[in-house]
Amino acid sequence: MNRKELIYRIKEKKSFLCVGLDPDIDRIPSKEGDPVDRILSFNKQVIDATRDYCVAYKPNTAFYEMYGAAGWQVLEETIAYIGPEHFVIADAKRGDIGNTSKKYAHAFFNTLKADAVTVAPYMGIDSVAPFLEYEGHWVVLLGLTSNVGSLDFQNQILDSGEKLFERVLRHSSNWGSPENMMYVVGATHPESFKDIRKILPEHFLLVPGIGSQGGDFDAVCRYGMNRDIGLLINVSRGILYPNNSEEAWLDAIIQSAKQYSQRMSKWV
Amino acid sequence: MNRKELIYRIKEKKSFLCVGLDPDIDRIPSKEGDPVDRILSFNKQVIDATRDYCVAYKPNTAFYEMYGAAGWQVLEETIAYIGPEHFVIADAKRGDIGNTSKKYAHAFFNTLKADAVTVAPYMGIDSVAPFLEYEGHWVVLLGLTSNVGSLDFQNQILDSGEKLFERVLRHSSNWGSPENMMYVVGATHPESFKDIRKILPEHFLLVPGIGSQGGDFDAVCRYGMNRDIGLLINVSRGILYPNNSEEAWLDAIIQSAKQYSQRMSKWV
Repeated sequence: MNRKELIYRIKEKKSFLCVGLDPDIDRIPSKEGDPVDRILSFNKQVIDATRDYCVAYKPNTAFYEMYGAAGWQVLEETIAYIGPEHFVIADAKRGDIGNTSKKYAHAFFNTLKADAVTVAPYMGIDSVAPFLEYEGHWVVLLGLTSNVGSLDFQNQILDSGEKLFERVLRHSSNWGSPENMMYVVGATHPESFKDIRKILPEHFLLVPGIGSQGGDFDAVCRYGMNRDIGLLINVSRGILYPNNSEEAWLDAIIQSAKQYSQRMSKWV
Repeated sequence: MNRKELIYRIKEKKSFLCVGLDPDIDRIPSKEGDPVDRILSFNKQVIDATRDYCVAYKPNTAFYEMYGAAGWQVLEETIAYIGPEHFVIADAKRGDIGNTSKKYAHAFFNTLKADAVTVAPYMGIDSVAPFLEYEGHWVVLLGLTSNVGSLDFQNQILDSGEKLFERVLRHSSNWGSPENMMYVVGATHPESFKDIRKILPEHFLLVPGIGSQGGDFDAVCRYGMNRDIGLLINVSRGILYPNNSEEAWLDAIIQSAKQYSQRMSKWV
């Protein structure tokens, strides 16, 4: 899915919600049967329940790889089930030497048929470039992540005066364009969005950290949005496992996705 | 496999060779049949041909993931075929928020049964810590990689005066110990090994970049070795696809592994 189509879908739905498909077998309502079958069935129900409220899905590969080949089969079937009307981000955080990243690009774009893949920047340009050769496909590069460990290296100050993540954003933005690169910026750093928009006025930002991780939704919208919206806000656990024991679980998922979507509609 | 056993095997075999299992379908001799079947068969032949000359194998997940679930099946079968007498490094370069890295640790240590997994440091402590909870298992953290992109961020100078990769080595070495952490240091930077050994006198270093990437074998041994050897030198393409058209391909692989092993025996 290209940028034009993504923006069209955001405006049509008045939502920039991305639903994280991180199925945790211990938290899935169905308690009987083969774990991978239960995960696939759960995913399909979640997708049907949330389709109307989101523009993107983001399965995280860890939750599938833990079941080995059978888990990858579920990942493939999940992405196929999502279909072409939603933007699919394989949250894989890959990155390797050029010869190897080329194989990863094949894995995620040709085999899995995702629209985008998250990539870690540590290994530099040749670890990212092979992903940019696929038209209509995207690299979502880690910028400033939502976790406590982002302080260890991403926030280190370079002798140029900029922080490492700022160098990552500025330097890597020349490798592609706002048509094929997005950046991960965690909602747990809302104060950073203003400065990040000075570095990257045009790019889409994929924003995790809303929901379970406690990020500030309104601050992210206020400081992070650009003229094309420019945000995909991801919610995983906050939608998959809503803390509402009053309602049946699927209704609770629908309500949660709907509420996020309604909050977003005011900003579109 | 724990450190004591790894050192024992290195001294017993007088080799610290790691064979990278990165099967490229376009370079595999057999030209007929299903690609994943050919890859598994190739891997088994390579393993049998090289077992006596190496102490470790390092399959890179990209070369399997490009075939989706069927590729993961081959990865599982390849690791099972290697058996318990060799150290197995899943070269996966993973790393995510703690909740997710926990799933990756399960994937690589419980499901795939690798001894070690390569991890990217960009996301910091909570992306690494879950892997360190498995006794007898290892994180191999990216330090200074062998590719040209290592210049983009790893070599950036921080305001403390140290380079980013030096900060990664120094800071992260407190998260675990030389019993459960190793570091990737590329052979294409032989001049850096002296300084790296000042930061990490005890840790094992996994060294890619010998062979196709042109690293300097003797310089790596001279500057990188410690009293426990402390090196695993990886060769992937240089063993899998030796440029020797005179011999049958399997003989050429045996000769190539044997030659590396013989060069190493002088250092053990």
